[in-house]
Amino acid sequence: MRATVLVRPKPGILDPEGEAVESSLRQLGFAVDEARVGRVIDLELADADADAARAELERACEQLLANPLIESYEIELHS
Amino acid sequence: MRATVLVRPKPGILDPEGEAVESSLRQLGFAVDEARVGRVIDLELADADADAARAELERACEQLLANPLIESYEIELHS
Repeated sequence: MRATVLVRPKPGILDPEGEAVESSLRQLGFAVDEARVGRVIDLELADADADAARAELERACEQLLANPLIESYEIELHS
Repeated sequence: MRATVLVRPKPGILDPEGEAVESSLRQLGFAVDEARVGRVIDLELADADADAARAELERACEQLLANPLIESYEIELHS
């Protein structure tokens, strides 16, 4: 089963990469009010069961893929 | 207008970060066949028109947000 995990800095948490992107885009002439940068992780899982896969991914996010103190995550399963 | 840009390493392009995530997940006991890591960029645009915003974002991806030689990008507009 394929899955996509989106990991983003939580609102209010400093995001230096996003600030750099925002300022570079403005310098290039793009009208941007805000930019925030996170990670997208595409996974191919051995699990075929959606509920089991989601539970595994939540554990993986808490343990490795995200830092729950400062990042939020979103899990998308593709059948 | 809010937009999300997903930037991913193209198929066949080496992805050391993805390999590190894959091997760490396996060491933690997760059954993962492949992991690829890219970036998610959330933007708040001044443009209110969807077509104009998409055209601007494509230019931004080509110029700054992605490296078109080795990365693909996907643009999602949120109304």
